[in-house]
Amino acid sequence: MACINKGWEVLSRKIKSCLKRKKGIQNTDNIAERWELLSGNNKWKGLLDPLDYDFRRYLIHYGQMPQAIYDSFNNEKASKYRGTSRYSKKNLFTRVGLDKNNPYNYEVTKYLYAASSKTEKIKESNWIGFVAVATDEGKVPLGRRDILITWRGTICSSEWNDDFKVSLIQPTKIFGENTGNVLIHKGFYSIYTSLNEASKYNRTTSARDQVLDEVKRLLEQYKNEEVSITVTGHSLGSALATLCAIDIVVNQVNREFPVTAFVFGCPRVGEENFKKAYEKLKNLQILRICNAPDHISEKPDRGLVDGSANDWRVYEQVGSELSIDTTKSKYLKKNVNGHILEVYLHGIAGTQGPKGEFNLEINRDIALMNKADDALKDEYGVPVSWWIEKNKGMVQQEDGSWILMDHEDDTDFLL
Amino acid sequence: MACINKGWEVLSRKIKSCLKRKKGIQNTDNIAERWELLSGNNKWKGLLDPLDYDFRRYLIHYGQMPQAIYDSFNNEKASKYRGTSRYSKKNLFTRVGLDKNNPYNYEVTKYLYAASSKTEKIKESNWIGFVAVATDEGKVPLGRRDILITWRGTICSSEWNDDFKVSLIQPTKIFGENTGNVLIHKGFYSIYTSLNEASKYNRTTSARDQVLDEVKRLLEQYKNEEVSITVTGHSLGSALATLCAIDIVVNQVNREFPVTAFVFGCPRVGEENFKKAYEKLKNLQILRICNAPDHISEKPDRGLVDGSANDWRVYEQVGSELSIDTTKSKYLKKNVNGHILEVYLHGIAGTQGPKGEFNLEINRDIALMNKADDALKDEYGVPVSWWIEKNKGMVQQEDGSWILMDHEDDTDFLL
Repeated sequence: MACINKGWEVLSRKIKSCLKRKKGIQNTDNIAERWELLSGNNKWKGLLDPLDYDFRRYLIHYGQMPQAIYDSFNNEKASKYRGTSRYSKKNLFTRVGLDKNNPYNYEVTKYLYAASSKTEKIKESNWIGFVAVATDEGKVPLGRRDILITWRGTICSSEWNDDFKVSLIQPTKIFGENTGNVLIHKGFYSIYTSLNEASKYNRTTSARDQVLDEVKRLLEQYKNEEVSITVTGHSLGSALATLCAIDIVVNQVNREFPVTAFVFGCPRVGEENFKKAYEKLKNLQILRICNAPDHISEKPDRGLVDGSANDWRVYEQVGSELSIDTTKSKYLKKNVNGHILEVYLHGIAGTQGPKGEFNLEINRDIALMNKADDALKDEYGVPVSWWIEKNKGMVQQEDGSWILMDHEDDTDFLL
Repeated sequence: MACINKGWEVLSRKIKSCLKRKKGIQNTDNIAERWELLSGNNKWKGLLDPLDYDFRRYLIHYGQMPQAIYDSFNNEKASKYRGTSRYSKKNLFTRVGLDKNNPYNYEVTKYLYAASSKTEKIKESNWIGFVAVATDEGKVPLGRRDILITWRGTICSSEWNDDFKVSLIQPTKIFGENTGNVLIHKGFYSIYTSLNEASKYNRTTSARDQVLDEVKRLLEQYKNEEVSITVTGHSLGSALATLCAIDIVVNQVNREFPVTAFVFGCPRVGEENFKKAYEKLKNLQILRICNAPDHISEKPDRGLVDGSANDWRVYEQVGSELSIDTTKSKYLKKNVNGHILEVYLHGIAGTQGPKGEFNLEINRDIALMNKADDALKDEYGVPVSWWIEKNKGMVQQEDGSWILMDHEDDTDFLL
């Protein structure tokens, strides 16, 4: 029954696509028809230079997801909810402005929390990602039931502490005891796999446990449909997305459904054996999007094997690469930090390849680059760092007084 | 007819007050009955130490008015509306949160704009104050038809340029050609009286012209009622309020209605002859509220007569004084800037006189002190500088794009 359903879906999609082409009807995009290609089933051959129009839209769609976490993350020192989402799962996309003029509808089903190292002995837990799944509506323009996993980059100082732990360890939780000498970044692995007794968010489950459980649950729910798993992240979140995508395939969580990772501004995650292990995996494609002025893809360059005094290993990149160069954009101030995710998305909208200039093919609003930064030239009349809650969440009461109301509750993790 | 109406109003108010006392009914305050006293008709004798409960409320009410301008002032570099109010006259009090649990209702009838010196030759014009009048509803708890004039303190760098012009000149526009050697601060006088051909706001009228015309208009409208004129300001706005209140009385704009100025953190405005001229005026009372850690009331100490090489004059304070000392407040961080208006209002709520400690008699929300500052101790869990428009006025459109919408239009000054 499962196979028949899925087969019917694929056939129906292909017939529709064929009919549309015959009638000369063009969608604004052809993502529904081309998603397998766009998700890398041919390693993005012919799509990268010149950058395919549908693929620009596809990448921007996925790149907006870690941005949604940045936009919702409560980092207010005065708040008792610091380290969580301001918005509930149900409201996330609406609150961050992703519901307007956007047909790719998903339902957020799980918020992910990760433990990072406040000190050597003390962890703290913060909201770091989410799992979502295409709704019945969203499935139509996406072409399949997409399960989406998203990881944000570093915000908290405890995460920086782990980012700097560049010694290499065996990721036994992912590869089992016989890792084949695979070694990866100690800090990234720690964030991905650590428990934290002091927090309700990671007392019994690590970020890894949370994401795998949720993906298993969703796959069980949608096993009779055509499903994809897409993992996306930025910066630290790219490293976690890389680990997570590999983890899912290594441990056959995906039930042979295709897994794709789109990672923006991705540091190096492991050494040569890690890269080799990745290259052996089936049903997995990773695309690293790299911006010329952003040098994070070269870092770390090497690290000691954890515990050794002089056993240095060289870090390697994994996956395919899409190069962009936002220094060519006329919209940006000089010396803008090329690592900013919104700058990446601008680059994807406008890149004309390594030899071309820069021209916006996708009408992605340039104002978005000033959300949390001073990136856009002043002449565009957009306030600097304009993404902010009204009165930082202070809300006036009927008696005239003000209280901080900067959290929408979810039922998860309520004890 | 005018006199009969006014007489009836006064009589009716006094009878009501008498009846209430007889019945043992107490309002939350007795401002309606006591406003003449509170407005200084007995030079605040017996009200200042200990600070009278009604008078605390009265001062906070008036001190909130320049704060309303700070809260609404558009100082966004990227905005074409920089230098104006974000909110229309109609909406001002609602938008700044002064409508909740506040019976003292006014209608803002005029926004005032002043020209200040960008350079020696070039002026710029910015929103600096407003005129409002008690509504029929607001008149009841206020006890009379109050005409309110409010001036904010320095925001723009062009205003700082004028603040520093401490040489002394003859204020001929206020005192006429026979000033009796009255000399005042050149920069404050300039802001109060300058035109600016380059701006629609001051092309044909100075701030002085605007305020006097509006007060005259309102007095004509309400001449048959019991009217007061209350002028309030903070910092530079205190200096302008001092000038404005004196101007109104010197030029008999007030038609013998009482004029009161409540000035918060007021610098010195003129020299000895200015002080003497003030002291001769009838129907005018000025109260300076001075916070111990704020030394602006000592500044400037002296200035050259404008154009002279060595004719120094000493600046004098005018009016009565209420001293507060917010360094005694347990709520504030150490070394908080004592000049902040919200800190002043906290001081008024809590002062127990020069020899007393500090205890909040008025439940003024301490969170307000962090509106635009880092004044409140962290333990109170209030974000720093929390007063901010959602997304700094960037508003998402139906197509998903964002535009800056940070202005509500008034019909004034539309050309």
